Amino acid sequence: MLTKINHIGIAVNSIEEAVPFYRDSLGMVLKGTEVVPSQKVKVAFLVIGESKIELLEPTAPDSPVAKFLEKNGPGVHHIAYSVPDVAKAIEQLKAGGTRMIDEVPREGAHGAKIAFIHPKSSGGVLTEICG
Amino acid sequence: MLTKINHIGIAVNSIEEAVPFYRDSLGMVLKGTEVVPSQKVKVAFLVIGESKIELLEPTAPDSPVAKFLEKNGPGVHHIAYSVPDVAKAIEQLKAGGTRMIDEVPREGAHGAKIAFIHPKSSGGVLTEICG
Repeated sequence: MLTKINHIGIAVNSIEEAVPFYRDSLGMVLKGTEVVPSQKVKVAFLVIGESKIELLEPTAPDSPVAKFLEKNGPGVHHIAYSVPDVAKAIEQLKAGGTRMIDEVPREGAHGAKIAFIHPKSSGGVLTEICG
Repeated sequence: MLTKINHIGIAVNSIEEAVPFYRDSLGMVLKGTEVVPSQKVKVAFLVIGESKIELLEPTAPDSPVAKFLEKNGPGVHHIAYSVPDVAKAIEQLKAGGTRMIDEVPREGAHGAKIAFIHPKSSGGVLTEICG
């Protein structure tokens, strides 16, 4: 069902402070930044092989990422896997007994279709599928 | 310097309980399990694209992964990136001002050479290079 790790989402207090490690120390290519208003988050994309690192900075105190940072501090927020068809993957996951946060695909960064699996079904790791 | 995400290390209380989500729900191929005595950890490898998910179950109460689970519960423990030459990469990172936990490569699972970057230098995300 999955083709690859699409990205690892990492919650940070400041993209500006976080980028130098990934770009300058590790040598990843910074592809750009984007604001995702629905998630109240600013995202920076860095390319690594077939995948990306997405740095997530909250743009409002009630952003889900702001709440994550308050509770956990900076760190991995979610793992996203590529699937050929998000709607089909949701049906397949549900048929196998997996609980979804999103029962229909919604729009993520870059206009991609995304859906989150419920952490109860994924052993505590927030898991996204996207296509 | 980096070629790809080698693996994402996920701390779990029980590999047996964690595998079904990755293997049966997400459809990853379980490549096998291995005990790494130096880390007091049992590891299960699941393939996803050019990368792997490594489920880490502690084999002793004083395992670093046991301490992580106590503090954080199950979740992403570290991200590992492939490099062509770990010793060279350590020198390059240090020259750029990055703090290392391991200043010389040591042996990880599969006999791979690995080194951990100090979380102080990587914004709180435990980061490994391996080759």
